[in-house]
Amino acid sequence: MRYWDEFDIGHVEDLGHYTFTRESILRFAGRFDPQPFHLDEEAAARSVLGGLCASGWQTASIFMRLNVLHQQRVADERAAAGLVRPVFGPSPGVGELRWLLPVRAGETLHYTQTVIGKRISASRPDWGLISTRVEARNEAGALAFSMLGKVFVQVEEPPKAD
Amino acid sequence: MRYWDEFDIGHVEDLGHYTFTRESILRFAGRFDPQPFHLDEEAAARSVLGGLCASGWQTASIFMRLNVLHQQRVADERAAAGLVRPVFGPSPGVGELRWLLPVRAGETLHYTQTVIGKRISASRPDWGLISTRVEARNEAGALAFSMLGKVFVQVEEPPKAD
Repeated sequence: MRYWDEFDIGHVEDLGHYTFTRESILRFAGRFDPQPFHLDEEAAARSVLGGLCASGWQTASIFMRLNVLHQQRVADERAAAGLVRPVFGPSPGVGELRWLLPVRAGETLHYTQTVIGKRISASRPDWGLISTRVEARNEAGALAFSMLGKVFVQVEEPPKAD
Repeated sequence: MRYWDEFDIGHVEDLGHYTFTRESILRFAGRFDPQPFHLDEEAAARSVLGGLCASGWQTASIFMRLNVLHQQRVADERAAAGLVRPVFGPSPGVGELRWLLPVRAGETLHYTQTVIGKRISASRPDWGLISTRVEARNEAGALAFSMLGKVFVQVEEPPKAD
């Protein structure tokens, strides 16, 4: 995690890869999305999706996992360089989640997020809001999932009141 | 799950309740959102959230769980009444997820969704799209989470081509 001041619009963060194993698909779906096309290979083969695929909520939750781990790596590097470690803030919400392609067992998605906007909080000028466009692509480079993200980040140098 | 034809705009579906135990918060966060305010009570107490609370992705994933179980109950009732059991479709995406209040360990949320729109798929007139507004309220009735949902549902009587 960097300070709000250090996020540049247009910057692309590489969040890394995740392979959706059959076991992880079944485990997530059993707990959160127990539909036949996420749980049962034969029923999935007969469904509109044509085969077993991951819950869209798993695809989204894996974004969050990779994002948190990435921000922690950045914070660790800052700390190792003797810099202050900014504190994580929460997200007020996200939007436009799009599940564009089924994610099959064994498939690997590559997640990135691009900074598309930033502003200082009106009510708490020591916090800023960063907006991102999240993308997850399969091994063929096709977009399988996208989302608009938002997160509060600490401001290093809040604007002074007049 | 009903047919698309049977969803009425304005209809409110009661999806039921879920209690966010400390164990379920830690388990979800450990896997998908390993931030201190979702994992560590002392760090959470010092954070902007003021105490341990559930990942927003858990709040959203629990909506999906309750929604699927509700649609399966409706389908079971149809089947018991000798009616056809419509097949579930996927969701093309959702939007405007808002995490409005922290969800603490031990809190119970009540989930509802209201049908706010419906249209037949242009490319596949045997499928229709249902839009909903999802809400989750705490025991005091305050809105903790909201979202705009979308799902494909089978059409019982597709419009005839001229």
